[in-house]
Amino acid sequence: MRIITVSREFGSGGREVGKRLADELGFAYYDREIVTEIASKHELDESYVEETLNRGILKSIPIHFGRTFSYAPAAISNSLNLFVEQHRIIKELAKKGDCIIVGRAADIILKDYKPFNLFVYADMKAKIERCRRRASENEKLSERDLEKQIKKIDAERAQYYEFFSNTPWGDKAGYHLCVNTTDVEIKEIVPGIAEYAKKFWK
Amino acid sequence: MRIITVSREFGSGGREVGKRLADELGFAYYDREIVTEIASKHELDESYVEETLNRGILKSIPIHFGRTFSYAPAAISNSLNLFVEQHRIIKELAKKGDCIIVGRAADIILKDYKPFNLFVYADMKAKIERCRRRASENEKLSERDLEKQIKKIDAERAQYYEFFSNTPWGDKAGYHLCVNTTDVEIKEIVPGIAEYAKKFWK
Repeated sequence: MRIITVSREFGSGGREVGKRLADELGFAYYDREIVTEIASKHELDESYVEETLNRGILKSIPIHFGRTFSYAPAAISNSLNLFVEQHRIIKELAKKGDCIIVGRAADIILKDYKPFNLFVYADMKAKIERCRRRASENEKLSERDLEKQIKKIDAERAQYYEFFSNTPWGDKAGYHLCVNTTDVEIKEIVPGIAEYAKKFWK
Repeated sequence: MRIITVSREFGSGGREVGKRLADELGFAYYDREIVTEIASKHELDESYVEETLNRGILKSIPIHFGRTFSYAPAAISNSLNLFVEQHRIIKELAKKGDCIIVGRAADIILKDYKPFNLFVYADMKAKIERCRRRASENEKLSERDLEKQIKKIDAERAQYYEFFSNTPWGDKAGYHLCVNTTDVEIKEIVPGIAEYAKKFWK
């Protein structure tokens, strides 16, 4: 089983790297698929599942825990269940065969499978530029607001990750290869990454 | 002109990455050559030149500056001259054609040439192991002493680098690709890095 996990800064194009890498190597690709599966299995709204998972475990536990005790345990166990469920599904997917999993601390969750762990990052300017290109006309934000949003999302990712991991999110020590997408075309660099990854399993 | 700079943690195999990459791409390779050229040009001892440069600018200035004023200016200007000379030579080499330069903050010195900047790193355990393999019988150190030495050398490299750079040494933001050599055979991963670098210049 060959597994590549892709961790990435928001706006760095990590998802594109993951998708193209999956095409290049003929691996399965999992990202939103994980949320969809949890949602359908538990008959929950996809956006609720995604939001809860993105918010991280600690923030998902209602802060008024002390006051509304009768309500809290269910809310807590619902939130925690989603994380447990996500773990279970990620491990199940990994067992199915060669795959690429984006985000969700899959590098930590799948540690025993010895995945190849990639981190994708870029300069803030490049990330803002990428977000701009991706956004539809009616959701254009100012540069400042975009930067704020990028930092907020990355902070959530870091918090989520560090709940499971001993090394900080984005610390190169935790990854096998760190790729800066600032000055490059993603489709151009993917063959090099694929070549590198293949040798990792040799 | 295509330039690759290789910054590396001591014991991570960065020099081997640089050499093999130069072979793979048919680029010139510069490392010790720079020290040799400075030494021969100024009729200085190579090890004196190397030691001074490794120590970094600040530490190369005698600390008893205040007391022995008559002596200090010459010592300072000698030290500084070596750094200036190193800058000049690195730029000269870069102008000669495609090349790989290891260490010496070449990524900062050659900024205007838009080099491809590589950082090579590894886990402490892997670095100790590599140092052990490389050492001759009579210079075998204990694991603890090796770790101390590795940290000391890297601290010098960081200090040297940060004299020229605004980003910390080893911070992935300053490099295009960061390669963890912990679990890999260097000769296996070099083709992937070469492939990646080629696309960087496209």
